Amino acid sequence: MTKPQLWYWPDIQGRGEFVRLALEAAGIDYEDSARTRGTDALIADLDRRSGRAPFAPPYLEIDGLVIAQVANILLYLGDRRDLAPSAILDRYWVHQVQLTIADAVAEAHNVHHPIAVMDYYDDQKAEALRAAEQFRAERLPKFLDYLEQAAACNDGPWMIDHRWTYADTSIFQLIEGLRYMFPQRMATLEPRYPALVRIHDMVARLPGVRAYLASDRRVAFNEQGIFRHYSELDGA
Amino acid sequence: MTKPQLWYWPDIQGRGEFVRLALEAAGIDYEDSARTRGTDALIADLDRRSGRAPFAPPYLEIDGLVIAQVANILLYLGDRRDLAPSAILDRYWVHQVQLTIADAVAEAHNVHHPIAVMDYYDDQKAEALRAAEQFRAERLPKFLDYLEQAAACNDGPWMIDHRWTYADTSIFQLIEGLRYMFPQRMATLEPRYPALVRIHDMVARLPGVRAYLASDRRVAFNEQGIFRHYSELDGA
Repeated sequence: MTKPQLWYWPDIQGRGEFVRLALEAAGIDYEDSARTRGTDALIADLDRRSGRAPFAPPYLEIDGLVIAQVANILLYLGDRRDLAPSAILDRYWVHQVQLTIADAVAEAHNVHHPIAVMDYYDDQKAEALRAAEQFRAERLPKFLDYLEQAAACNDGPWMIDHRWTYADTSIFQLIEGLRYMFPQRMATLEPRYPALVRIHDMVARLPGVRAYLASDRRVAFNEQGIFRHYSELDGA
Repeated sequence: MTKPQLWYWPDIQGRGEFVRLALEAAGIDYEDSARTRGTDALIADLDRRSGRAPFAPPYLEIDGLVIAQVANILLYLGDRRDLAPSAILDRYWVHQVQLTIADAVAEAHNVHHPIAVMDYYDDQKAEALRAAEQFRAERLPKFLDYLEQAAACNDGPWMIDHRWTYADTSIFQLIEGLRYMFPQRMATLEPRYPALVRIHDMVARLPGVRAYLASDRRVAFNEQGIFRHYSELDGA
Protein backbone atom coordinates (compact mmCIF):
# COMPACT_ATOMS: atom_id res chain seq x y z
CA MET A 1 0.00 0.00 0.00
CA THR A 2 1.29 3.46 -0.88
CA LYS A 3 2.04 5.70 2.03
CA PRO A 4 -0.61 8.43 2.55
CA GLN A 5 0.61 11.83 1.39
CA LEU A 6 -0.43 14.94 3.24
CA TRP A 7 -0.14 18.16 1.23
CA TYR A 8 -0.03 21.35 3.26
CA TRP A 9 2.03 24.53 3.65
CA PRO A 10 5.26 23.29 5.21
CA ASP A 11 6.15 26.27 7.41
CA ILE A 12 3.03 26.62 9.51
CA GLN A 13 0.84 24.47 11.69
CA GLY A 14 -2.32 25.98 10.21
CA ARG A 15 -5.30 23.85 9.34
CA GLY A 16 -3.01 21.00 8.33
CA GLU A 17 -2.02 20.48 11.95
CA PHE A 18 -5.42 18.99 12.77
CA VAL A 19 -4.71 16.27 10.22
CA ARG A 20 -1.06 15.83 11.22
CA LEU A 21 -2.04 15.30 14.85
CA ALA A 22 -4.62 12.64 14.03
CA LEU A 23 -2.14 10.81 11.80
CA GLU A 24 0.63 11.04 14.40
CA ALA A 25 -1.62 9.97 17.27
CA ALA A 26 -2.75 6.95 15.27
CA GLY A 27 0.79 6.02 14.29
CA ILE A 28 -0.09 6.15 10.60
CA ASP A 29 3.04 6.35 8.48
CA TYR A 30 2.59 9.28 6.07
CA GLU A 31 4.63 11.67 3.98
CA ASP A 32 4.26 15.36 4.75
CA SER A 33 4.90 15.99 1.09
CA ALA A 34 5.57 19.72 1.01
CA ARG A 35 7.97 19.30 3.93
CA THR A 36 10.05 16.83 1.97
CA ARG A 37 9.63 18.44 -1.47
CA GLY A 38 9.13 22.14 -0.75
CA THR A 39 6.44 24.76 -1.14
CA ASP A 40 6.92 24.96 -4.91
CA ALA A 41 6.10 21.29 -5.17
CA LEU A 42 2.86 21.91 -3.27
CA ILE A 43 1.89 24.75 -5.57
CA ALA A 44 2.77 22.67 -8.62
CA ASP A 45 0.79 19.74 -7.27
CA LEU A 46 -2.24 21.91 -6.62
CA ASP A 47 -2.00 23.53 -10.06
CA ARG A 48 -1.80 20.27 -11.95
CA ARG A 49 -4.96 18.90 -10.38
CA SER A 50 -8.22 19.25 -12.22
CA GLY A 51 -11.64 17.72 -11.88
CA ARG A 52 -12.17 16.57 -8.33
CA ALA A 53 -9.45 18.84 -7.07
CA PRO A 54 -9.04 20.40 -3.61
CA PHE A 55 -10.13 24.00 -3.14
CA ALA A 56 -7.11 24.57 -0.91
CA PRO A 57 -4.61 22.65 1.22
CA PRO A 58 -4.65 20.57 3.32
CA TYR A 59 -5.50 17.53 1.25
CA LEU A 60 -4.63 13.92 1.77
CA GLU A 61 -3.86 11.33 -0.87
CA ILE A 62 -4.86 8.03 0.61
CA ASP A 63 -6.17 4.70 -0.68
CA GLY A 64 -6.22 6.10 -4.22
CA LEU A 65 -8.40 9.07 -3.21
CA VAL A 66 -7.62 12.75 -2.81
CA ILE A 67 -9.58 14.18 0.10
CA ALA A 68 -9.71 17.84 1.08
CA GLN A 69 -11.31 19.88 3.85
CA VAL A 70 -10.02 19.11 7.34
CA ALA A 71 -13.32 17.80 8.71
CA ASN A 72 -13.75 15.59 5.65
CA ILE A 73 -10.23 14.18 5.93
CA LEU A 74 -10.83 13.40 9.59
CA LEU A 75 -14.19 11.84 8.77
CA TYR A 76 -12.43 9.58 6.30
CA LEU A 77 -9.69 8.65 8.76
CA GLY A 78 -12.35 8.07 11.39
CA ASP A 79 -14.24 5.70 9.10
CA ARG A 80 -11.35 3.93 7.42
CA ARG A 81 -8.54 4.05 9.98
CA ASP A 82 -10.69 3.60 13.03
CA LEU A 83 -10.09 7.06 14.52
CA ALA A 84 -13.71 7.43 15.54
CA PRO A 85 -16.44 5.17 16.91
CA SER A 86 -18.45 3.36 14.27
CA ALA A 87 -21.88 3.46 15.95
CA ILE A 88 -24.17 5.79 14.02
CA LEU A 89 -25.11 7.59 17.19
CA ASP A 90 -21.46 8.47 17.79
CA ARG A 91 -20.18 8.95 14.29
CA TYR A 92 -22.23 12.03 13.42
CA TRP A 93 -21.68 13.42 16.90
CA VAL A 94 -17.88 13.33 16.56
CA HIS A 95 -18.21 15.00 13.18
CA GLN A 96 -20.52 17.64 14.63
CA VAL A 97 -17.96 18.45 17.33
CA GLN A 98 -15.23 18.67 14.68
CA LEU A 99 -17.31 21.03 12.52
CA THR A 100 -17.93 23.25 15.55
CA ILE A 101 -14.19 23.31 16.28
CA ALA A 102 -13.67 24.25 12.62
CA ASP A 103 -16.09 27.16 13.07
CA ALA A 104 -14.17 28.32 16.15
CA VAL A 105 -10.91 28.11 14.19
CA ALA A 106 -12.38 30.12 11.30
CA GLU A 107 -13.58 32.81 13.72
CA ALA A 108 -10.17 32.93 15.41
CA HIS A 109 -8.59 33.46 12.00
CA ASN A 110 -11.13 36.16 11.23
CA VAL A 111 -9.95 38.08 14.31
CA HIS A 112 -6.62 38.97 12.68
CA HIS A 113 -8.03 39.09 9.15
CA PRO A 114 -11.51 40.60 9.50
CA ILE A 115 -11.55 42.54 6.25
CA ALA A 116 -9.60 40.64 3.65
CA VAL A 117 -8.25 37.10 3.82
CA MET A 118 -5.62 37.90 1.19
CA ASP A 119 -4.30 41.16 2.69
CA TYR A 120 -1.75 41.78 5.42
CA TYR A 121 -2.60 42.04 9.08
CA ASP A 122 -1.11 45.53 9.23
CA ASP A 123 -3.63 46.73 6.65
CA GLN A 124 -6.55 45.68 8.87
CA LYS A 125 -5.10 46.13 12.33
CA ALA A 126 -7.60 48.71 13.57
CA GLU A 127 -10.46 46.43 12.54
CA ALA A 128 -8.71 43.44 14.10
CA LEU A 129 -8.59 45.24 17.44
CA ARG A 130 -12.36 45.62 17.36
CA ALA A 131 -12.90 42.06 16.18
CA ALA A 132 -10.65 40.70 18.94
CA GLU A 133 -12.65 42.47 21.60
CA GLN A 134 -15.88 40.71 20.77
CA PHE A 135 -14.16 37.40 20.13
CA ARG A 136 -12.47 37.43 23.54
CA ALA A 137 -15.58 38.60 25.38
CA GLU A 138 -18.33 36.62 23.66
CA ARG A 139 -17.45 34.14 20.97
CA LEU A 140 -14.47 32.45 22.62
CA PRO A 141 -16.31 31.61 25.88
CA LYS A 142 -19.37 30.60 23.87
CA PHE A 143 -17.40 28.03 21.90
CA LEU A 144 -15.47 26.79 24.95
CA ASP A 145 -18.61 26.59 27.11
CA TYR A 146 -20.17 24.44 24.44
CA LEU A 147 -17.19 22.15 24.00
CA GLU A 148 -16.72 21.81 27.77
CA GLN A 149 -20.29 20.67 28.14
CA ALA A 150 -19.87 18.29 25.22
CA ALA A 151 -16.81 16.79 26.93
CA ALA A 152 -18.41 16.73 30.37
CA CYS A 153 -21.43 14.75 29.19
CA ASN A 154 -19.28 11.80 28.23
CA ASP A 155 -18.92 8.94 30.72
CA GLY A 156 -15.29 8.41 29.81
CA PRO A 157 -12.39 10.87 30.06
CA TRP A 158 -12.36 11.73 26.31
CA MET A 159 -14.75 13.74 24.16
CA ILE A 160 -16.64 10.60 23.31
CA ASP A 161 -16.45 6.97 24.24
CA HIS A 162 -13.57 5.51 26.25
CA ARG A 163 -10.75 6.06 23.79
CA TRP A 164 -9.41 9.03 21.88
CA THR A 165 -10.90 10.10 18.57
CA TYR A 166 -10.05 12.86 16.12
CA ALA A 167 -12.26 15.17 18.18
CA ASP A 168 -9.75 14.87 21.02
CA THR A 169 -6.68 15.65 18.93
CA SER A 170 -8.59 18.63 17.55
CA ILE A 171 -9.47 19.86 21.05
CA PHE A 172 -5.77 19.61 21.91
CA GLN A 173 -4.84 21.78 18.93
CA LEU A 174 -7.62 24.29 19.57
CA ILE A 175 -6.44 24.80 23.15
CA GLU A 176 -2.80 24.99 22.05
CA GLY A 177 -3.65 27.58 19.42
CA LEU A 178 -5.82 29.69 21.70
CA ARG A 179 -3.14 29.66 24.42
CA TYR A 180 -0.63 30.92 21.88
CA MET A 181 -2.95 33.57 20.44
CA PHE A 182 -4.59 34.79 23.64
CA PRO A 183 -2.34 33.85 26.60
CA GLN A 184 -3.89 36.39 28.96
CA ARG A 185 -7.47 35.65 28.04
CA MET A 186 -6.92 31.89 28.23
CA ALA A 187 -5.27 32.21 31.66
CA THR A 188 -8.49 33.83 32.85
CA LEU A 189 -10.83 31.40 31.13
CA GLU A 190 -9.14 28.03 31.52
CA PRO A 191 -10.20 27.31 35.11
CA ARG A 192 -13.76 27.14 33.76
CA TYR A 193 -12.86 24.33 31.40
CA PRO A 194 -11.44 21.40 33.37
CA ALA A 195 -12.64 18.73 30.94
CA LEU A 196 -11.07 20.44 27.92
CA VAL A 197 -7.78 20.98 29.75
CA ARG A 198 -7.80 17.33 30.86
CA ILE A 199 -8.35 16.17 27.28
CA HIS A 200 -5.60 18.49 26.06
CA ASP A 201 -3.18 16.99 28.58
CA MET A 202 -4.18 13.40 27.84
CA VAL A 203 -3.68 13.94 24.10
CA ALA A 204 -0.24 15.43 24.76
CA ARG A 205 0.64 12.19 26.56
CA LEU A 206 -0.47 9.82 23.80
CA PRO A 207 2.76 8.10 22.68
CA GLY A 208 2.40 9.16 19.05
CA VAL A 209 1.62 12.76 19.94
CA ARG A 210 4.36 12.95 22.58
CA ALA A 211 6.93 11.76 20.06
CA TYR A 212 5.59 14.16 17.45
CA LEU A 213 5.66 17.19 19.74
CA ALA A 214 9.27 16.39 20.68
CA SER A 215 10.31 16.08 17.03
CA ASP A 216 11.19 18.77 14.52
CA ARG A 217 8.08 17.80 12.58
CA ARG A 218 6.11 20.00 14.97
CA VAL A 219 6.90 23.50 13.75
CA ALA A 220 6.37 26.31 16.23
CA PHE A 221 3.36 28.60 16.03
CA ASN A 222 4.15 31.75 14.08
CA GLU A 223 2.53 34.82 12.54
CA GLN A 224 1.79 33.16 9.21
CA GLY A 225 -0.62 30.57 10.58
CA ILE A 226 -4.20 30.58 11.77
CA PHE A 227 -3.47 31.22 15.44
CA ARG A 228 -1.26 34.31 15.66
CA HIS A 229 0.04 36.09 18.67
CA TYR A 230 -0.34 39.84 18.35
CA SER A 231 -0.21 41.11 21.92
CA GLU A 232 -2.49 44.03 21.11
CA LEU A 233 -5.30 41.53 20.36
CA ASP A 234 -5.06 39.84 23.75
CA GLY A 235 -6.37 40.94 27.13
CA ALA A 236 -7.42 39.25 30.35
CA MET B 1 -41.76 6.41 12.41
CA THR B 2 -41.84 9.90 13.88
CA LYS B 3 -41.68 12.75 11.40
CA PRO B 4 -38.25 14.44 11.28
CA GLN B 5 -38.25 17.80 13.02
CA LEU B 6 -36.14 20.63 11.69
CA TRP B 7 -35.36 23.37 14.21
CA TYR B 8 -34.30 26.69 12.76
CA TRP B 9 -35.11 30.40 12.95
CA PRO B 10 -38.52 30.65 11.31
CA ASP B 11 -38.27 34.08 9.65
CA ILE B 12 -35.15 33.66 7.57
CA GLN B 13 -33.77 31.28 5.00
CA GLY B 14 -30.35 31.34 6.62
CA ARG B 15 -28.31 28.20 7.01
CA GLY B 16 -31.47 26.19 7.61
CA GLU B 17 -32.48 26.65 3.99
CA PHE B 18 -29.77 24.24 2.82
CA VAL B 19 -31.45 21.55 4.91
CA ARG B 20 -35.00 22.57 3.95
CA LEU B 21 -34.16 22.36 0.25
CA ALA B 22 -32.68 18.87 0.55
CA LEU B 23 -35.71 17.66 2.50
CA GLU B 24 -38.15 19.26 0.06
CA ALA B 25 -36.32 17.99 -3.01
CA ALA B 26 -36.36 14.47 -1.56
CA GLY B 27 -40.04 14.66 -0.67
CA ILE B 28 -39.27 13.87 2.98
CA ASP B 29 -42.20 14.76 5.20
CA TYR B 30 -40.84 16.92 8.05
CA GLU B 31 -41.99 19.47 10.55
CA ASP B 32 -40.35 22.89 10.40
CA SER B 33 -40.83 23.09 14.14
CA ALA B 34 -40.17 26.75 14.87
CA ARG B 35 -42.47 27.67 11.99
CA THR B 36 -45.34 25.79 13.58
CA ARG B 37 -44.49 26.56 17.21
CA GLY B 38 -42.73 29.93 17.10
CA THR B 39 -39.29 31.35 17.85
CA ASP B 40 -39.81 31.07 21.61
CA ALA B 41 -40.32 27.34 21.24
CA LEU B 42 -37.01 27.11 19.36
CA ILE B 43 -35.18 29.02 22.08
CA ALA B 44 -36.81 26.89 24.77
CA ASP B 45 -35.93 23.72 22.89
CA LEU B 46 -32.32 24.80 22.51
CA ASP B 47 -32.10 25.79 26.19
CA ARG B 48 -33.46 22.55 27.52
CA ARG B 49 -30.92 20.44 25.63
CA SER B 50 -27.79 19.35 27.39
CA GLY B 51 -25.10 16.80 26.73
CA ARG B 52 -24.92 16.14 23.01
CA ALA B 53 -26.66 19.39 22.21
CA PRO B 54 -26.40 21.55 19.10
CA PHE B 55 -24.10 24.57 19.21
CA ALA B 56 -26.68 26.52 17.20
CA PRO B 57 -29.62 25.97 14.85
CA PRO B 58 -30.24 24.37 12.42
CA TYR B 59 -30.56 20.94 13.94
CA LEU B 60 -32.60 17.99 12.84
CA GLU B 61 -34.30 15.42 15.04
CA ILE B 62 -34.45 12.27 12.99
CA ASP B 63 -34.43 8.54 13.67
CA GLY B 64 -34.00 9.22 17.39
CA LEU B 65 -30.89 11.38 16.83
CA VAL B 66 -30.34 15.10 17.08
CA ILE B 67 -27.92 16.23 14.39
CA ALA B 68 -26.51 19.74 14.03
CA GLN B 69 -24.22 21.53 11.58
CA VAL B 70 -25.59 21.85 8.06
CA ALA B 71 -22.91 19.73 6.40
CA ASN B 72 -23.35 17.03 9.03
CA ILE B 73 -27.14 16.99 8.63
CA LEU B 74 -26.74 16.67 4.86
CA LEU B 75 -24.14 13.94 5.32
CA TYR B 76 -26.66 12.04 7.42
CA LEU B 77 -29.47 12.55 4.92
CA GLY B 78 -27.09 11.54 2.16
CA ASP B 79 -26.21 8.31 3.96
CA ARG B 80 -29.58 7.40 5.38
CA ARG B 81 -32.11 8.90 2.97
CA ASP B 82 -30.14 8.24 -0.16
CA LEU B 83 -29.47 11.90 -1.05
CA ALA B 84 -25.91 11.16 -2.09
CA PRO B 85 -24.10 8.36 -3.90
CA SER B 86 -22.92 5.54 -1.67
CA ALA B 87 -19.62 4.73 -3.41
CA ILE B 88 -16.72 5.78 -1.18
CA LEU B 89 -15.12 7.64 -4.03
CA ASP B 90 -18.22 9.81 -4.38
CA ARG B 91 -19.37 10.11 -0.80
CA TYR B 92 -16.41 12.11 0.51
CA TRP B 93 -16.33 14.17 -2.66
CA VAL B 94 -19.93 15.34 -2.22
CA HIS B 95 -19.15 16.20 1.38
CA GLN B 96 -16.03 18.08 0.32
CA VAL B 97 -18.07 20.16 -2.12
CA GLN B 98 -20.63 20.87 0.60
CA LEU B 99 -17.93 21.97 3.06
CA THR B 100 -16.49 24.30 0.43
CA ILE B 101 -19.96 25.77 -0.17
CA ALA B 102 -20.22 26.22 3.61
CA ASP B 103 -16.93 28.14 3.58
CA ALA B 104 -18.25 30.39 0.80
CA VAL B 105 -21.44 31.00 2.79
CA ALA B 106 -19.44 31.87 5.92
CA GLU B 107 -17.31 34.33 3.96
CA ALA B 108 -20.42 35.90 2.41
CA HIS B 109 -21.83 36.38 5.90
CA ASN B 110 -18.54 37.86 7.02
CA VAL B 111 -18.87 40.55 4.34
CA HIS B 112 -21.72 42.25 6.19
CA HIS B 113 -20.47 41.29 9.66
CA PRO B 114 -16.68 41.55 9.45
CA ILE B 115 -16.06 42.78 12.98
CA ALA B 116 -18.62 41.25 15.30
CA VAL B 117 -21.12 38.49 14.58
CA MET B 118 -23.37 39.70 17.38
CA ASP B 119 -23.44 43.41 16.49
CA TYR B 120 -25.54 45.33 13.97
CA TYR B 121 -24.54 45.87 10.38
CA ASP B 122 -24.73 49.65 10.85
CA ASP B 123 -22.03 49.44 13.51
CA GLN B 124 -19.59 47.84 11.08
CA LYS B 125 -20.70 49.32 7.78
CA ALA B 126 -17.43 51.05 6.92
CA GLU B 127 -15.56 47.81 7.46
CA ALA B 128 -18.19 45.89 5.49
CA LEU B 129 -17.59 48.15 2.49
CA ARG B 130 -13.91 47.20 2.53
CA ALA B 131 -14.67 43.52 3.07
CA ALA B 132 -17.17 43.51 0.20
CA GLU B 133 -14.61 44.89 -2.19
CA GLN B 134 -12.21 42.00 -1.75
CA PHE B 135 -14.98 39.45 -1.63
CA ARG B 136 -16.45 40.61 -4.95
CA ALA B 137 -13.07 40.92 -6.64
CA GLU B 138 -11.24 37.86 -5.36
CA ARG B 139 -13.00 35.42 -3.10
CA LEU B 140 -16.34 35.17 -4.91
CA PRO B 141 -14.80 34.31 -8.32
CA LYS B 142 -12.33 31.98 -6.60
CA PHE B 143 -15.15 29.97 -5.02
CA LEU B 144 -17.29 29.99 -8.17
CA ASP B 145 -14.35 29.08 -10.44
CA TYR B 146 -13.71 26.11 -8.20
CA LEU B 147 -17.31 24.96 -8.07
CA GLU B 148 -17.75 25.43 -11.83
CA GLN B 149 -14.78 23.21 -12.49
CA ALA B 150 -16.09 20.67 -10.00
CA ALA B 151 -19.42 20.62 -11.84
CA ALA B 152 -17.86 20.59 -15.28
CA CYS B 153 -15.73 17.53 -14.54
CA ASN B 154 -18.80 15.37 -14.03
CA ASP B 155 -20.05 13.28 -16.94
CA GLY B 156 -23.66 13.90 -16.03
CA PRO B 157 -25.52 17.21 -15.78
CA TRP B 158 -25.38 17.39 -11.97
CA MET B 159 -22.51 18.07 -9.56
CA ILE B 160 -21.84 14.37 -9.31
CA ASP B 161 -23.25 11.24 -10.82
CA HIS B 162 -26.39 11.22 -12.96
CA ARG B 163 -28.91 12.29 -10.36
CA TRP B 164 -29.22 15.19 -7.95
CA THR B 165 -27.54 15.11 -4.56
CA TYR B 166 -27.46 17.53 -1.66
CA ALA B 167 -24.51 19.25 -3.35
CA ASP B 168 -26.89 20.31 -6.12
CA THR B 169 -29.57 21.74 -3.84
CA SER B 170 -26.78 23.61 -2.03
CA ILE B 171 -25.43 25.02 -5.31
CA PHE B 172 -28.96 26.20 -6.09
CA GLN B 173 -29.17 28.03 -2.77
CA LEU B 174 -25.68 29.50 -3.05
CA ILE B 175 -26.50 30.97 -6.47
CA GLU B 176 -29.88 32.23 -5.24
CA GLY B 177 -28.26 33.88 -2.25
CA LEU B 178 -25.44 35.46 -4.21
CA ARG B 179 -27.86 36.82 -6.81
CA TYR B 180 -29.87 38.42 -4.03
CA MET B 181 -26.82 39.83 -2.24
CA PHE B 182 -24.76 40.92 -5.25
CA PRO B 183 -27.12 41.33 -8.25
CA GLN B 184 -24.71 43.53 -10.21
CA ARG B 185 -21.65 41.45 -9.53
CA MET B 186 -23.44 38.21 -10.32
CA ALA B 187 -24.78 39.64 -13.59
CA THR B 188 -21.16 40.21 -14.59
CA LEU B 189 -19.85 36.88 -13.37
CA GLU B 190 -22.60 34.41 -14.27
CA PRO B 191 -21.74 33.98 -17.96
CA ARG B 192 -18.50 32.38 -16.76
CA TYR B 193 -20.39 29.69 -14.87
CA PRO B 194 -22.68 27.81 -17.27
CA ALA B 195 -22.54 24.53 -15.34
CA LEU B 196 -23.52 26.15 -12.04
CA VAL B 197 -26.37 28.09 -13.65
CA ARG B 198 -27.58 24.90 -15.35
CA ILE B 199 -27.58 23.04 -12.04
CA HIS B 200 -29.38 25.93 -10.37
CA ASP B 201 -32.09 25.80 -13.04
CA MET B 202 -32.42 22.02 -12.92
CA VAL B 203 -32.81 22.07 -9.14
CA ALA B 204 -35.50 24.75 -9.45
CA ARG B 205 -37.41 22.36 -11.72
CA LEU B 206 -37.25 19.33 -9.43
CA PRO B 207 -40.91 18.65 -8.53
CA GLY B 208 -40.30 18.90 -4.78
CA VAL B 209 -38.31 22.11 -5.08
CA ARG B 210 -40.73 23.68 -7.57
CA ALA B 211 -43.63 23.04 -5.20
CA TYR B 212 -41.62 24.37 -2.27
CA LEU B 213 -40.58 27.58 -4.02
CA ALA B 214 -44.20 28.25 -4.98
CA SER B 215 -45.40 27.70 -1.41
CA ASP B 216 -45.39 30.07 1.55
CA ARG B 217 -42.84 27.77 3.21
CA ARG B 218 -40.16 29.51 1.15
CA VAL B 219 -39.74 32.82 2.97
CA ALA B 220 -38.19 35.66 0.99
CA PHE B 221 -34.57 36.68 1.47
CA ASN B 222 -34.28 39.54 3.95
CA GLU B 223 -31.75 41.57 5.92
CA GLN B 224 -31.73 39.22 8.90
CA GLY B 225 -30.34 36.22 7.05
CA ILE B 226 -26.93 35.19 5.77
CA PHE B 227 -27.29 36.65 2.29
CA ARG B 228 -28.28 40.31 2.66
CA HIS B 229 -28.81 42.90 0.01
CA TYR B 230 -27.16 46.17 0.94
CA SER B 231 -26.73 47.98 -2.38
CA GLU B 232 -23.60 49.75 -1.15
CA LEU B 233 -21.87 46.36 -0.91
CA ASP B 234 -22.57 45.43 -4.52
CA GLY B 235 -20.84 46.56 -7.69
CA ALA B 236 -20.35 45.17 -11.18
